[in-house]
Amino acid sequence: MNMAHIATAFDRDLESTQALVLRMGGLVETALLDAAEALDARDEDLAARVRAGDAAIDALEDQINSECARLIALRAPTAGDLRTVLTVMKIAAALERAGDYAKNLAKRTAILSQMPQVPGASGSIRRLAKAVVVMLTDALDAYIRRDARLAEDVRQRDREIDQMYNSIFREFLTHMMEDPRNIGPCMHLHFIAKNIERVGDHATSVAEQVIYLVTGSMPEDDRPKVDSTGAVVARG
Amino acid sequence: MNMAHIATAFDRDLESTQALVLRMGGLVETALLDAAEALDARDEDLAARVRAGDAAIDALEDQINSECARLIALRAPTAGDLRTVLTVMKIAAALERAGDYAKNLAKRTAILSQMPQVPGASGSIRRLAKAVVVMLTDALDAYIRRDARLAEDVRQRDREIDQMYNSIFREFLTHMMEDPRNIGPCMHLHFIAKNIERVGDHATSVAEQVIYLVTGSMPEDDRPKVDSTGAVVARG
Repeated sequence: MNMAHIATAFDRDLESTQALVLRMGGLVETALLDAAEALDARDEDLAARVRAGDAAIDALEDQINSECARLIALRAPTAGDLRTVLTVMKIAAALERAGDYAKNLAKRTAILSQMPQVPGASGSIRRLAKAVVVMLTDALDAYIRRDARLAEDVRQRDREIDQMYNSIFREFLTHMMEDPRNIGPCMHLHFIAKNIERVGDHATSVAEQVIYLVTGSMPEDDRPKVDSTGAVVARG
Repeated sequence: MNMAHIATAFDRDLESTQALVLRMGGLVETALLDAAEALDARDEDLAARVRAGDAAIDALEDQINSECARLIALRAPTAGDLRTVLTVMKIAAALERAGDYAKNLAKRTAILSQMPQVPGASGSIRRLAKAVVVMLTDALDAYIRRDARLAEDVRQRDREIDQMYNSIFREFLTHMMEDPRNIGPCMHLHFIAKNIERVGDHATSVAEQVIYLVTGSMPEDDRPKVDSTGAVVARG
């Protein structure tokens, strides 16, 4: 927060809303890590807890949206403050979607537990999930500290996530070509990997919102997507 | 719009913003149909136009968000009017994501054109895309007319989309098992099908926003997801 200006009623209201955003972020991070752990350990109980936990994440988004609407109605914020409130709502929406991906991942764990194991696959997915959670943590940190440099760093890191995803895609393709029994599990694992990669996109959206909030404009250069999955499949 | 009450400055401002939402919806619908057509006809030029067209959709979302922020700042709307403005922003966000899916579909068309054709696949995808576009059109119609019944109908139709997607999933799985050369193209086609199914989810979100707007509360009963892809793969 900008410590230079005098805390207004608006700032105090906003602070309690931001606390909700952080709590929501914490729940989403735990859900993602637990879902990846459940997949790796074939732990259906843990997966069930992740699925059940999504309702709390959704409820927090609703609460944040209501708080923001109340704040706008009550305080009639200035243009700058209004921008901050709208940013909070956008971040909450990104977190809600990230939570949905964790829930979907957990859903597929039960299905995958019934199928032959694909060597190395759940370990690769767990590493991807960890990298994405670090991005998300840093994006929220950047938000709280209004740190555009950290946000830009998060934004750049999305490329590494794309590269990890591409190499996982290749790995699965090889397993499927080698043995048709891998086709079923690999279809699900591939979805999981893609969904985690999408969480990275949402972490990037949060980072971009932070940059917008601090600098007043969205980052200009498009992050070049490193998606080489097409070329790989074309050769296959 | 509710014709019973006297049009205020707020209503007039909102009307021009709603016109932008409709224009955005029209662009998204065309993008989805063109992307599916390009895939079916292996028409890379049409696919390139869809990809290039996404910038206009994104620009409209930005414009809608700015208009809404301006409206809030200028008119300090009442609770009910504020809800309407926030709904407009949520609908624009859903449309923007639907546009992204169309762009991604178009990207994969170029890749798929280089690969062996999977019999019947692009026809199935085109039918799915058409059904989803009808849902989206009806959801926007329901929004403009504040028609909760039509919105509820859209919401129920999401099940049919899920069933269409499940049968496409089975179709692709069979092709992959039969011939490993189908694995590569089917991985991409499967993504396309899943992304179109997700556009259906966004159309449903729009419909739920309409229900919220008209009745003041979100629909309670969770739509039961008809996802039987797990069971199919487990048997495979």
